[in-house]
Amino acid sequence: MRTVFWEDDRVKMIDQRLLPGAFEIVSYQTHHEVARAIHDMVVRGAPAIGATAGFGLALAARESASASTEDLLADLRSAAAVLKSARPTAVNLTWALDRIFKAIANKDLKPDELRQAVLTEAQKIADEDIEINKHMAQHGATLIHDGDTIIHHCNTGALAAVDWGTALGVIRMAHEQGKQVHVLVDETRPRLQGARLTAWELEQYRIPYEIISDNMAGYFLHAGKAQKVFFGADRVAANGDVANKVGTYMLSLAAQDNGVPAYAVVPTSTIDLSLKDGSLIPIEERDPAEVLDLQFRGQPIAPQNARARNPAFDVTPNRLISAIVTENGIVYPPFEANLVEFILP
Amino acid sequence: MRTVFWEDDRVKMIDQRLLPGAFEIVSYQTHHEVARAIHDMVVRGAPAIGATAGFGLALAARESASASTEDLLADLRSAAAVLKSARPTAVNLTWALDRIFKAIANKDLKPDELRQAVLTEAQKIADEDIEINKHMAQHGATLIHDGDTIIHHCNTGALAAVDWGTALGVIRMAHEQGKQVHVLVDETRPRLQGARLTAWELEQYRIPYEIISDNMAGYFLHAGKAQKVFFGADRVAANGDVANKVGTYMLSLAAQDNGVPAYAVVPTSTIDLSLKDGSLIPIEERDPAEVLDLQFRGQPIAPQNARARNPAFDVTPNRLISAIVTENGIVYPPFEANLVEFILP
Repeated sequence: MRTVFWEDDRVKMIDQRLLPGAFEIVSYQTHHEVARAIHDMVVRGAPAIGATAGFGLALAARESASASTEDLLADLRSAAAVLKSARPTAVNLTWALDRIFKAIANKDLKPDELRQAVLTEAQKIADEDIEINKHMAQHGATLIHDGDTIIHHCNTGALAAVDWGTALGVIRMAHEQGKQVHVLVDETRPRLQGARLTAWELEQYRIPYEIISDNMAGYFLHAGKAQKVFFGADRVAANGDVANKVGTYMLSLAAQDNGVPAYAVVPTSTIDLSLKDGSLIPIEERDPAEVLDLQFRGQPIAPQNARARNPAFDVTPNRLISAIVTENGIVYPPFEANLVEFILP
Repeated sequence: MRTVFWEDDRVKMIDQRLLPGAFEIVSYQTHHEVARAIHDMVVRGAPAIGATAGFGLALAARESASASTEDLLADLRSAAAVLKSARPTAVNLTWALDRIFKAIANKDLKPDELRQAVLTEAQKIADEDIEINKHMAQHGATLIHDGDTIIHHCNTGALAAVDWGTALGVIRMAHEQGKQVHVLVDETRPRLQGARLTAWELEQYRIPYEIISDNMAGYFLHAGKAQKVFFGADRVAANGDVANKVGTYMLSLAAQDNGVPAYAVVPTSTIDLSLKDGSLIPIEERDPAEVLDLQFRGQPIAPQNARARNPAFDVTPNRLISAIVTENGIVYPPFEANLVEFILP
């Protein structure tokens, strides 16, 4: 089962908002629906939303009744703008759409050939994602020792990609290689992707885990109870600064303060060499209701009409990142010099 | 309205588990009920549970039918053991009980005089708590500048003490002095004392605030959006290491990483000179259900039968603490040398 896939001329995906309570597949027929699904986090995770955006563009190609290649391309460009605006931080969304436009450029295709070419490239992005993730997993698993306890932030598993995943894929690979691993699962407020999704995945893989609230990671790191910290990323700047789910920065600080390595696992499509450093990465601020719409033992968690803030990501400076695991190998500091070597032309 | 008080031969207190949804006063007639209320966090906050334990001992004195002073003292010692075991980390509980035993020692009191003396001293502890907190607030308010945005962890307000509070008392005092302050309220997982209690108090005081999830503090600190960090403590070791609600350590790390001062506000009764450093402070691990029993938009936040860990506190090393505010003044590093000067004999 893939997180997102093309079937019967529709984009279908697991509705991740309902997990772990319910497992449902939703399907969409328009790129506007797909953009809304990305924005509302029906699907999330940098690689997954890249693949989803690709399929969204394939829908847009079919939605367009344009009879000329030029008009169809204009429709596609406008659909791409809609899809890109769904979520600003993860670069994979833009990366996937740019890749499709590059694949269809200067090919002198007729409109129907163009429609097919968009779908073919979108499908290729989705298929390749799984292979890329397995390569990352193999490289990353060499960092994990038998008996390690690993703190993991957010969800970076099969659900965050088309299949297999990034950081959680590394942990799964180590487990499949027979290494004994234990995962401390950051619940990952506000939307609780760790408690809801990562714990659910770990149950499927039969990997032992315990959920902790995000603010407990420092306690376990200081107590010497965790040997590794792993997370994914939504965008990595040219200097190795890592934009990832909010909380990654504080987790990485606590790791460094206790001499525990912190690893980011990302496909090279997540590395944005056009940005010198992390200060240039746009950070999405989402609806405060995501922070407030929580019940503790049936009680509301805040006064009625309480105000809240909701930055969805933060930037972890490269000095706190021990290595960046990509499908082409493990990149060590200095990232300014080394990252570019791992990105194939 | 006091958080905890003696009335009609009973200990009465606000049931803090129900806030902000409901405001209810509960009353207890036995020290076992009081110990359970402390354990279940009907009342919480280091100064508040100190005062509560004192009243609990006064109940125990009345419960005992012992006709001799010696037997009554034995009953009180056994009741004190029950009360002390309710929560291990906050030293105020032990401090209050020890103070009462000291007040009644070597006085050659008859049983009924002894019963009255216990209640008198417990009442004194409660009354003094408010004065002590106001002194702390006055000292601490000098650290706050007009226009400051302050990140605050857990609840340290009137609800955490008999009245007024520790760190939140400082913020309230600055506000009453006419300084414009804005509070970023850490929600404080797992029991959400920030979102539930601190936000509720700030509404009463008409101090502007926004709730954030704990893992967002780093984002705001890095963005230069907060000028101060304030919290209370459950126990401070002789070297200034601070045991406080879990998450304080990661928050203090993020403050230091961005050059923002982090202040602990504590009555001297929270300073435990008998412990050389924070590694000797017992850290309570509570029921994992407190982490898991949460609903996000009506959905369970974790798979059924998920496992979790729940350390309730962590230790922030003294190198991350900019100053410790007490009722006797502001203590600056080196705390090993300076703390003892502020504790009156």
